[in-house]
Amino acid sequence: MIERILILGTGLLGSSTGLALRAAGFAGAIEGWDKNPKESAESLRLGAIDAVAVDPLDAARPSQIVLLATPVYAILDWMEQLAPILTPEQLVTDVGSTKATITETGNRLFNQAGRAAFLPGHPMAGKEIGGATAADAGIFRDAAWIFTSDPWIGSLTRGELLPTAASLAMHWMQWVRDFGCRVMELEAGRHDELVAWVSHLPQFLSTALTALIETEVGDAPELKVVGGRALREMTRLGSSPYSMWRDVALTNTDKVAAAIQALEQRLAHLRENLRTPELRDEFELANRFRKG
Amino acid sequence: MIERILILGTGLLGSSTGLALRAAGFAGAIEGWDKNPKESAESLRLGAIDAVAVDPLDAARPSQIVLLATPVYAILDWMEQLAPILTPEQLVTDVGSTKATITETGNRLFNQAGRAAFLPGHPMAGKEIGGATAADAGIFRDAAWIFTSDPWIGSLTRGELLPTAASLAMHWMQWVRDFGCRVMELEAGRHDELVAWVSHLPQFLSTALTALIETEVGDAPELKVVGGRALREMTRLGSSPYSMWRDVALTNTDKVAAAIQALEQRLAHLRENLRTPELRDEFELANRFRKG
Repeated sequence: MIERILILGTGLLGSSTGLALRAAGFAGAIEGWDKNPKESAESLRLGAIDAVAVDPLDAARPSQIVLLATPVYAILDWMEQLAPILTPEQLVTDVGSTKATITETGNRLFNQAGRAAFLPGHPMAGKEIGGATAADAGIFRDAAWIFTSDPWIGSLTRGELLPTAASLAMHWMQWVRDFGCRVMELEAGRHDELVAWVSHLPQFLSTALTALIETEVGDAPELKVVGGRALREMTRLGSSPYSMWRDVALTNTDKVAAAIQALEQRLAHLRENLRTPELRDEFELANRFRKG
Repeated sequence: MIERILILGTGLLGSSTGLALRAAGFAGAIEGWDKNPKESAESLRLGAIDAVAVDPLDAARPSQIVLLATPVYAILDWMEQLAPILTPEQLVTDVGSTKATITETGNRLFNQAGRAAFLPGHPMAGKEIGGATAADAGIFRDAAWIFTSDPWIGSLTRGELLPTAASLAMHWMQWVRDFGCRVMELEAGRHDELVAWVSHLPQFLSTALTALIETEVGDAPELKVVGGRALREMTRLGSSPYSMWRDVALTNTDKVAAAIQALEQRLAHLRENLRTPELRDEFELANRFRKG
């Protein structure tokens, strides 16, 4: 059914999606484009795409699916550029980390008479290192791939959308399942709330911890020998690129700030109770989460 | 040279040491004891020890090496009980997580005329789950095994200690190398300072984060699906047992509290700069640590 896909942004997630499509048996054309020509060249070399688009907007016109796989603000830019030139027979979807702004923009610019369909998506998969060189179809295995357009998905199942767009969306979700993902539907605000806790807080926390350790003991010659698995693991996300997380910070500011502040208070409470039995309560709560 | 070892505390580290000795070709006797008979039975079943001691102090008398592998306060208790009954031909060593108190106690109770030798040690290895069932000789591979008695090690190399104790210590360190560890010598205070940053802070941070997430969204049905590798990794240490970390909190309180407070301030700084270019500086510092 899907014969032509365009991936705009052939970094880690874009190229991993191309590889996952091929691994799952997708036989159509996959074109790609990246503002950094090295990324698209590497993606082509890996076989994640089979052609580098000369002009991304020209390449979008004949594609049934356009996948936006860049940081959030670049996704919003592409949406503005694509909406006027695509047709109702086309589906635009994305892998952006925050969903409230993208979903609202999608419903404003797409999903209406004469416009292409937009299906907001977010695979809960990634690596601490960006770029096509790190691409890997396996990152999607057992991950959730969240879609955040409830009313849209509802109208799909009620048959209110154009049959072509509905069919493209159903087929896209089936490919996502074939990547090994669990498809999940969430309201966009609920998505941003949940990921503030389980994705954004762990990231900003790891960045703060890693920056602190670099500042405090980064030059200690013994450090790299002494640090074990706990240090490696808790600082792994310290490698994450600012370019992507800046957009998360800018588009989910309030929820992320609330989560960070709650953690500051929790750390202060633990610190003040290092020598009291309240410390036991914190360990028991943490143990319960892990067992749950 | 070493023909008989007694392991007091046959949980994760004690039993892993027994397994590592066997894997490295140690052919002598390994006796074990644990206050929880299930732990010593499991250790025996795994082959980490080849006999369960009936009375731990009786079993200590004929052992050339007594390894203390319990939480810190239990190590200090054992030291008090063992010091009067052992001889200068014996070596006591440990795997305790903090070293200032243990090293000071070791020099007060051992390492003098008529007393056994005490060599304070700490393998930078572990798991989030305690107990003999989790024992694994592989946890020591490429880990640092730190010894914190500089003057003692100096007197070893200068030949001031009894030849037997010196020889036992040298042999013990060689076994540790044969486990795949890198032997490292550090002053005890410096050890406690470094591990406050690279081991204790990551642990208490993970506990606080995990307890917070349990409190805030622990009952959200979508949570376990949405959370990806970042969540699993950043909360792994949330499984760690209070029984061990209580003693760390009690014996390294000031250094741990200072590290936690510094992290609180760092998080507040990051939170206040989610929408400013200062966020970039934090990511760059963190990136630098990871590349360094």
